[in-house]
Amino acid sequence: MRPTTGWQADGTTGTLRRGPIERRELRPDDLAVRIDYCGVCGTDVHALDGHDGKAGHLLVPGHEFTGVVTATGPDVSGFAVGDPVAVGNIVDSCGRCAMCRAGQENFCHAFPTLTYGGTDRQDGSPTLGGYSREYVVRDRFAHRLPAGLDPAGAAPLLCAGITVWEPLQALGVGPGSRVAVAGLGGLGHLAVKMAVALGATTTVISRSPDKADDARRLGAHDLLVSSDEGQMAEARDRFDVVIDTISAPHDLGPYLRLVAMDGTLSQLGYLGPVTVETIDLLVGRKKLSSAGSGGLPATAAMLDFCAAHGITADIELLPSSQVNEALERLRRNDVRYRFVLDMADLD
Amino acid sequence: MRPTTGWQADGTTGTLRRGPIERRELRPDDLAVRIDYCGVCGTDVHALDGHDGKAGHLLVPGHEFTGVVTATGPDVSGFAVGDPVAVGNIVDSCGRCAMCRAGQENFCHAFPTLTYGGTDRQDGSPTLGGYSREYVVRDRFAHRLPAGLDPAGAAPLLCAGITVWEPLQALGVGPGSRVAVAGLGGLGHLAVKMAVALGATTTVISRSPDKADDARRLGAHDLLVSSDEGQMAEARDRFDVVIDTISAPHDLGPYLRLVAMDGTLSQLGYLGPVTVETIDLLVGRKKLSSAGSGGLPATAAMLDFCAAHGITADIELLPSSQVNEALERLRRNDVRYRFVLDMADLD
Repeated sequence: MRPTTGWQADGTTGTLRRGPIERRELRPDDLAVRIDYCGVCGTDVHALDGHDGKAGHLLVPGHEFTGVVTATGPDVSGFAVGDPVAVGNIVDSCGRCAMCRAGQENFCHAFPTLTYGGTDRQDGSPTLGGYSREYVVRDRFAHRLPAGLDPAGAAPLLCAGITVWEPLQALGVGPGSRVAVAGLGGLGHLAVKMAVALGATTTVISRSPDKADDARRLGAHDLLVSSDEGQMAEARDRFDVVIDTISAPHDLGPYLRLVAMDGTLSQLGYLGPVTVETIDLLVGRKKLSSAGSGGLPATAAMLDFCAAHGITADIELLPSSQVNEALERLRRNDVRYRFVLDMADLD
Repeated sequence: MRPTTGWQADGTTGTLRRGPIERRELRPDDLAVRIDYCGVCGTDVHALDGHDGKAGHLLVPGHEFTGVVTATGPDVSGFAVGDPVAVGNIVDSCGRCAMCRAGQENFCHAFPTLTYGGTDRQDGSPTLGGYSREYVVRDRFAHRLPAGLDPAGAAPLLCAGITVWEPLQALGVGPGSRVAVAGLGGLGHLAVKMAVALGATTTVISRSPDKADDARRLGAHDLLVSSDEGQMAEARDRFDVVIDTISAPHDLGPYLRLVAMDGTLSQLGYLGPVTVETIDLLVGRKKLSSAGSGGLPATAAMLDFCAAHGITADIELLPSSQVNEALERLRRNDVRYRFVLDMADLD
């Protein structure tokens, strides 16, 4: 086994402590990656909240990271030691089902192997995430990090980025599209940057007018204040696509009413069961969709697009020793727009 | 006023009785229509169940009918006495909002005037429906009935037909599309006929295998038995479009799981609030939509399409005096597939 260090929870407290972890010895198609930067995702908070350690497993969060290849298995041909790479929230899949064959490994019918909190398909061991100094990953689930992308700002692209990229692509957003983005957090701010770069007329929907400057700085063309009933009524049927990144349970009705005839409300992030009034879908033949994560080809395309358009996340970079502070602040939404942990302090 | 006769409820009993009603004198753009055939829609049952007569209004149901023009107002140029016509579930709209301008009068922002149970936009009177011998309707809300369409079998096209036509068109169903239709009633059987005529590979989803012969007779290529878990699992992700015409509240999850990547579940008929697990939308980036009724241009196009393909509803034609029996049988789903009332007995 390969010893490394990571930030881990054993289920006895809600905080992470630094400790030794082990990575598997390299299989023929594995890469060892020195993790330099790992983003802090809302999913990490949920995973910690749900982790009771009863199964005897450690939890090491982290599923959006960038780093450098330090070793390769004998069958690896696409990567060499020293290559900058990026890994997202899945690290394996069955490879045989219709979804895998279509390049949508995130929807693998046999369920993809999650980067942490999953179970390795070969040895059955629990996967431990990117809040650590090294990860061992099957080569085809690692992405080459395009030149010119800052590796710290690029880390959140691997989860937040692909999660917003997928619906923008699936819904055909391009020049002339009218896109609104509700919620200006980790996902939302990247959705704005990408929609703008795709040529869409892009509006931020926010509860307060305070975000006007931020929205403009991100490239948005307009701000719609959701607490202003007059503004919301006036914006009825205005947008081809509304990307809803609000992570707390909320009424989808007001956002559906902003969708234009035959348009789509895309709700991101797992809200569990949601209830919609069919009349809000029926009037205007609107659609509700959901999205999360993405497949390997889309992730690669998204990274290339971001490199071409200079898109990375707006981050607050912290030494990994401040991980608990970062998680606490994320719980309060006190971040613009994503924390990224610098793993150098784990050496 | 123009005296006529209709089947009406006063809120004291759940049954309809024959009685005199009055239609308005013709306005310049009005037609008087002798109603020959009126379909019996599930909405009529709901309206009767919800009618308590407290507002002092009579209820005369019926919003899918065919007949012949018997008189025209002085400004009417598109119709002449003797023309066969058809009227659906809306008889007026604001004409000025974005939806009306787009030919989607059914989504009029000021709410369309319903054929019955609505309020006339000019004199404020309650609208009385097609279970009667005469209707007076604004010319632009009447449709010319194409030659070759049996007027009795065509009556249900004006509500059931357009309700399934709209999503088939909006979702781009055509040659090569894989369409499934859940529920083989008034809406469902027309959805099958239209999907087949559009060139789609069409599957009926039914709770029992009993419907296999019916499905084949309607032109369907396959039957999927929803109570057979093995069949349902095997059909996962199989259909580009699933048209769900089941009128009782039900779990949408099993039908969403049949939808292919980037496909759509279109739920028809007003179910009120529906709850979906976002995971059922997320996995496969599926969409949920709803539809009901249609605009004037789409209704005209649907009638032309049906005439070209010889599509009418499979009906059980009853004299209008048997309306209460028809409603009772409809409550028990004892109809293949639509009751149509013959109004000649009202003379």
